[in-house]
Amino acid sequence: MSGYSVIVHVNDNDRFPVAAGNIGNLIKDLAPEQPRVELVINGTAVSVFQDAAALRQMRDLHAQGVMIVACRNSLQMMCSGKPDCPFAEDKLPSFVTVVSAGVTEIIRKQRDGYAYIKP
Amino acid sequence: MSGYSVIVHVNDNDRFPVAAGNIGNLIKDLAPEQPRVELVINGTAVSVFQDAAALRQMRDLHAQGVMIVACRNSLQMMCSGKPDCPFAEDKLPSFVTVVSAGVTEIIRKQRDGYAYIKP
Amino acid sequence: MSGYSVIVHVNDNDRFPVAAGNIGNLIKDLAPEQPRVELVINGTAVSVFQDAAALRQMRDLHAQGVMIVACRNSLQMMCSGKPDCPFAEDKLPSFVTVVSAGVTEIIRKQRDGYAYIKP
Repeated sequence: MSGYSVIVHVNDNDRFPVAAGNIGNLIKDLAPEQPRVELVINGTAVSVFQDAAALRQMRDLHAQGVMIVACRNSLQMMCSGKPDCPFAEDKLPSFVTVVSAGVTEIIRKQRDGYAYIKP
Repeated sequence: MSGYSVIVHVNDNDRFPVAAGNIGNLIKDLAPEQPRVELVINGTAVSVFQDAAALRQMRDLHAQGVMIVACRNSLQMMCSGKPDCPFAEDKLPSFVTVVSAGVTEIIRKQRDGYAYIKP
Repeated sequence: MSGYSVIVHVNDNDRFPVAAGNIGNLIKDLAPEQPRVELVINGTAVSVFQDAAALRQMRDLHAQGVMIVACRNSLQMMCSGKPDCPFAEDKLPSFVTVVSAGVTEIIRKQRDGYAYIKP
């Protein structure tokens, strides 16, 4: 696979800002070349989808071509017992792609030649 | 290499439960296909081998085909000066594979096509 | 690519000692074979370049063939507003290689066959 392709993995809310900054720097550094970037959010970090500032950053990254991926297992685990869970799958913005398991997605993409970064 | 192969790296006790959960989700998500999964435990995280609940989880993962690997360097470092170290190499359950250096194992397997995940 | 090649990624000061220990163990474990090792330091971790003990460890690793890489984006971000920033790019020891973006370097090297480890 030619060009730059990377999975950026976030499983802890506290690391989301670092990940977003890393992706922004990467895109600036490579411009005008467009890297393939996929931000995979799983584990307890899926609660970041209730954070308005984080959602704005994700929307902006998505507008620059970044794929934003959430793990369904994690959404269900973290929303379990919360009737109006603010980050339930059906409340996520349309720019978020939900996969059955974040870990499977991370392995599949590395197999396809993507690099892996854990910010 | 066909199929799914992954090294899951734990070097901090606190992340063991996340790693175990990730591996469980991966196996469920891919069933009936069986991924090759190797859990490499090094650094201060080798003290997790004295935790009965963690050992039960490892035994269960091993029964599902997961290779459980401990770093000898780390075991020796963490047991240094402890005459009855509860996680000395000769006290580890037989399902644990001890390698001379966890980092070497992680590199070797990535070179062989395994993906890498740091939970 | 034959032999052992690895990017070791540090973006948090607290993890520098673990990374340095991992690299030392790797070199000892593989001797006399010489692995290609690149330690990439970005994010807030670039402040480690003001720590005399860390610099000594880096100098020693560099003498053993390890490439020490700092992210220019991070140096500028962390030195912003500090007139005499002790880890400004022009104050770094000559054994440090500065790249425009640490994340780009990490992706490029994985694309070239390097493994990735996040200590």
